Amino acid sequence: MSLRKISILGSTGSIGLNALKVVENLQDQFEVVYLSCQHNGKELLRQAKQFRPKAVAVTDIKTADEIRPALASMGIELQSGREGLVDLAARDDVDIVLNGIVGAAGMEPTYRALSAGVDVALSNKESLVMAGDLLARIRQKSGARLFPVDSEHSAIWQCLSGENPEDIRRLILTGSGGPFRTRPRSTFPNITVAEALKHPNWNMGAKITIDSATMMNKGLEVIEAYWLFQLPVEKIDIIIHPQSIIHSMVEFQDASVKAQLGVPDMKVPIQYALTWPRHSPSPWERLDLLEIGTLTFEPVDRERFPAIELAYEALRRGGTSPAALNVANEQAVYRFLAGEIGFMDIPKIIEHVLESHTWKAHPDLDDFKVLEQNIIRTVSRFSPSPMGIKV
Amino acid sequence: MSLRKISILGSTGSIGLNALKVVENLQDQFEVVYLSCQHNGKELLRQAKQFRPKAVAVTDIKTADEIRPALASMGIELQSGREGLVDLAARDDVDIVLNGIVGAAGMEPTYRALSAGVDVALSNKESLVMAGDLLARIRQKSGARLFPVDSEHSAIWQCLSGENPEDIRRLILTGSGGPFRTRPRSTFPNITVAEALKHPNWNMGAKITIDSATMMNKGLEVIEAYWLFQLPVEKIDIIIHPQSIIHSMVEFQDASVKAQLGVPDMKVPIQYALTWPRHSPSPWERLDLLEIGTLTFEPVDRERFPAIELAYEALRRGGTSPAALNVANEQAVYRFLAGEIGFMDIPKIIEHVLESHTWKAHPDLDDFKVLEQNIIRTVSRFSPSPMGIKV
Repeated sequence: MSLRKISILGSTGSIGLNALKVVENLQDQFEVVYLSCQHNGKELLRQAKQFRPKAVAVTDIKTADEIRPALASMGIELQSGREGLVDLAARDDVDIVLNGIVGAAGMEPTYRALSAGVDVALSNKESLVMAGDLLARIRQKSGARLFPVDSEHSAIWQCLSGENPEDIRRLILTGSGGPFRTRPRSTFPNITVAEALKHPNWNMGAKITIDSATMMNKGLEVIEAYWLFQLPVEKIDIIIHPQSIIHSMVEFQDASVKAQLGVPDMKVPIQYALTWPRHSPSPWERLDLLEIGTLTFEPVDRERFPAIELAYEALRRGGTSPAALNVANEQAVYRFLAGEIGFMDIPKIIEHVLESHTWKAHPDLDDFKVLEQNIIRTVSRFSPSPMGIKV
Repeated sequence: MSLRKISILGSTGSIGLNALKVVENLQDQFEVVYLSCQHNGKELLRQAKQFRPKAVAVTDIKTADEIRPALASMGIELQSGREGLVDLAARDDVDIVLNGIVGAAGMEPTYRALSAGVDVALSNKESLVMAGDLLARIRQKSGARLFPVDSEHSAIWQCLSGENPEDIRRLILTGSGGPFRTRPRSTFPNITVAEALKHPNWNMGAKITIDSATMMNKGLEVIEAYWLFQLPVEKIDIIIHPQSIIHSMVEFQDASVKAQLGVPDMKVPIQYALTWPRHSPSPWERLDLLEIGTLTFEPVDRERFPAIELAYEALRRGGTSPAALNVANEQAVYRFLAGEIGFMDIPKIIEHVLESHTWKAHPDLDDFKVLEQNIIRTVSRFSPSPMGIKV
């Protein structure tokens, strides 16, 4: 059997590192052809030495220049800058692209790969959140497929295996509720970056960890599910499940519910996206329900987490609204991580952008670029609420 | 679309009554052609009036004679006695037989239906427990299919939809633990029939409720799973889940676990067996995990419930051993229900029969009849332990 050729975009991030562990587990099935990173040149070099890709892309120009000689000595092609990444993503000499890029920057690479007719294992949820409509049109033209990598969407995908989509009554996305599920709401304005970076169950990158703390992550996942499974927004629910063992569920028309479970480990959904429809053997930690003992469920507190309602509202408005929500959130999170704004400013900024941005029904790639620049400007000008005041 | 013709055997029992409710829900898909009962003539007449079957079978001769005139006036054919039931089960002018007969008596009807090339929705787990090997050979010849109705096996079947059997790491059957999960073991000899008939979650017939109390039910289900899903015995596990919400699970090679959930309601697995691979709409109670709040898991206490180990041992021995286990259990349960023996005598009788019966590797239908008669005799002669002694 010939090896399947894989391109891993964002290979030095949390998803990328896990994806390479998966490829190690599947070394008799996969061959790494392309890798990309933003500015972790040291890790990229280590990966290049181990996996010997044909080419790599480094978006940070300074980092690219630093590692150029080492790559040249290994005979590995280097593409640099944003254009280099897009060029790599558009190449059609691979069987699958795993897109582990964080944030809106990951959308165009998804678009390019799908346009080239290459299947995409998608961790970059922003691709679908921003451009679900555009990507659906591209896929229809090229025939390329999208495989979810998010644990929630992988769970739903697994539960829908062999099922008829008409039989779905609703999808139930589970969410841990993040680190602030039970924290007194009056103390939310004082939440520090360090507190927000402590996720109870999942070990992830910084941006997605903050999204879990605001629960915007779950809101983005609702939008992602909408595009992946093509169901009306009323059929996509959220339930709080603090243990993160049930990764999501599907309720069918006959009242039967299917769920997918496991320890919180991104390697499992990453591998499934690469081996679908098979479950290839893995040496990873197995679920021990006896050790866990108890699974609990709670309703979502939509007042505590206004990001949820903002996401549903953006989805109902459609057009550029989900993209605006996503870019506003992303920029607000980066300002929060930089210590420039407070935790409660994040939803405030998003709401402001949702109301004020120039809405368009069927945006194309250029529209998204303009939209992104405008929102980046709007968010950078936002004056934060006074911080650190004990209430 | 023409209606599918269904035969419901054991139509006045717990499964039969639920099956008729399912048929009412699916009245645009199914037509009842045959019904059968043992001695609840009154209910059978009511059903005959509503569903207008072509023929019915009544195994109790006295009951058959009582309702003969009423059936004749409706122009409905009556078959009586054991032979009448077997005759009805063997008819090939139906699309599916739902076998809801309780106990070993249900095995031959399954055998006859499968021999006639008719698919069987099987609630009578004793068919597979006793004659799994024989039924597999018959199915291979006739091409008829077996659809599980037990909630546990239906759950596994649903979880395996679209999956490759090679990817299964293990099946995990859930069990509530029955009414005596936490009762002090020293008081087990004093367990009364009334106490054993109180199941915490499921509303079922008397025999299966006692089997839940001894947990022999779970042991029989392990054997049933062995034949339905054709996996080695080491790949079939049991976990205690007192809420009976997760009906069973499958763990795959990649550490992913799939589960099927729902309120405890036999109509759901019955309907799925009739509508597979579809989940037809139903008005039945939906699962509300927020109301339930908590799901818990415990190991099986094999010392508390010796029936479990007896069932695994019978499966390992193969041949007539599972049949002997089943008949011994059935007869012991009837003696317990009659107040003739104590609760702890049930496993004692089974162990005795497992050790003493005349073992055969590949029994046929006649062998089972001889075996059954011999074991009925053995169990009837068993002298019970002294009862009612407070320890």
